[in-house]
Amino acid sequence: MDSNTNKEIVRIGLIQMGCGPDAEINRKSTEQGIRQAAGQGAQIICLQELFQTPYFCKTEDHANFQLAEEIPGPATNSMSRLASELGVVLILPLFEKRSSGIYHNTAVVVDADGSIAGRYRKMHIPDDPGFYEKFYFTPGDTGFKTIPTRFGKVGVLICWDQWFPEAARLTALSGAQFLFYPTAIGYQSFDESVAPKQAQAWKTIQRAHSIANGVFTVAVNRVGQEDQINFWGGSFVSDPFGEILAEASSKEPEILVVDCDLSMIEKTRQAWPFLRDRRVDAYQNLTRLFIDQNDI
Amino acid sequence: MDSNTNKEIVRIGLIQMGCGPDAEINRKSTEQGIRQAAGQGAQIICLQELFQTPYFCKTEDHANFQLAEEIPGPATNSMSRLASELGVVLILPLFEKRSSGIYHNTAVVVDADGSIAGRYRKMHIPDDPGFYEKFYFTPGDTGFKTIPTRFGKVGVLICWDQWFPEAARLTALSGAQFLFYPTAIGYQSFDESVAPKQAQAWKTIQRAHSIANGVFTVAVNRVGQEDQINFWGGSFVSDPFGEILAEASSKEPEILVVDCDLSMIEKTRQAWPFLRDRRVDAYQNLTRLFIDQNDI
Repeated sequence: MDSNTNKEIVRIGLIQMGCGPDAEINRKSTEQGIRQAAGQGAQIICLQELFQTPYFCKTEDHANFQLAEEIPGPATNSMSRLASELGVVLILPLFEKRSSGIYHNTAVVVDADGSIAGRYRKMHIPDDPGFYEKFYFTPGDTGFKTIPTRFGKVGVLICWDQWFPEAARLTALSGAQFLFYPTAIGYQSFDESVAPKQAQAWKTIQRAHSIANGVFTVAVNRVGQEDQINFWGGSFVSDPFGEILAEASSKEPEILVVDCDLSMIEKTRQAWPFLRDRRVDAYQNLTRLFIDQNDI
Repeated sequence: MDSNTNKEIVRIGLIQMGCGPDAEINRKSTEQGIRQAAGQGAQIICLQELFQTPYFCKTEDHANFQLAEEIPGPATNSMSRLASELGVVLILPLFEKRSSGIYHNTAVVVDADGSIAGRYRKMHIPDDPGFYEKFYFTPGDTGFKTIPTRFGKVGVLICWDQWFPEAARLTALSGAQFLFYPTAIGYQSFDESVAPKQAQAWKTIQRAHSIANGVFTVAVNRVGQEDQINFWGGSFVSDPFGEILAEASSKEPEILVVDCDLSMIEKTRQAWPFLRDRRVDAYQNLTRLFIDQNDI
């Protein structure tokens, strides 16, 4: 069997940007990035988390709820036209207004014909000094799922989700070939010593999702300084074996275009058949917060 | 607060050995290794999977069931005496005969007074060319658990378990400070090209268990050539941040003695509070083998 003839290549685009205060400029340079990636043959293109604005969760400010928009709405409308024009799938991370009082951190998947293929609402919401997301985002109710598109079965998870093996597993079990992680992760400028450790852990756990599940992982992070937060970029793609296929700068905006051979999924899962051997009869307690030894 | 005064050090010993055909010699050199580690102050000492014998699962041979022994039995009796003499906790991976027709791949935890603190029976059983474990080992029925000992709360998992984030998570949720992985992993000698990739994936996914759960991970692998399998050693300890604290040779037997500062667990889980944010309301499907899109 000639392995070359059995390749099933999907070309992925990652748009790693720095965001300034002007949303219009952010949108324009994102569109430019999408056109560049599509020009290089990218078929599924993923943007970073909350790509239209600076990372506003660094303070708790009611005024920021004005940034939220409905889906469908202005962003999905204009991006649908772009997706259809270029014939690409787009993954759009937005601040969604679902109703007065209910706002989500959401990723919309636009199919290559411009239709909305599906949406995922961030399930795990962080809250740390400088990352006050629990103030803004109602935890998602979409669950973990796969969104079929013209170019592949897309799982989308968002940023903080990346630390939860459960999220990766459930998305893979629903059929995803890719785990996309639009992200806004950085370190506080006063705490540079931990930055390399954190970036390393961030990469390691996502590579492990690839390994455990036999899927491609695509992390798209923002980059650059915004007030006290230094977003570390380093967007990357790992293959089902957990190997890094390509990795972006930790300092500069960058467009990555990466070929993923989907036939590797079958091959890897046959070689290391983890999904065959899961002990689903013994996993019930995963729905508990903690398994207390003294239940008093 | 002086962080030095708040350290809570537990010293761990890892006995990475090569095994020859003579079980008596294997036992003697293991005892020597234990004495050496204890002499260097190790308090919890972990042996490699099936430490008394060569890795017999490379063929399916009924004669090998003779190697199984009861627990308590000869191995636990002699190791209990050693644990009590040295005042150390021992993790003993054995081929357990539970009854005629029921054999397990089991790890016994012997406490520092020589008593048996608990046992874990390998839950995930592999079966690959050269690793015919499903022939020998009934899948465990202990579930995933923590065994309290004089020197720390010990989680034990065995080899193939290391590829399953569910096992690590459930063990950590039951209170474990350490995930010990006695292991026998290697590559087929005719397939050396994949060896570095496999060893890398093996390390990555276990470091990710440390990160996801904020625990120490201790992997103890055998080393050296046995017929067609080349066991790659590389035993290591990673801290709750996923950083490698120490790592053994990929070629030679080696005793590692490593200090683990348990106060890091609290610190790491406060800094990155993943356990706070698990979506236990949305994890039910983890008890399914696959989430079929077409249920026909």
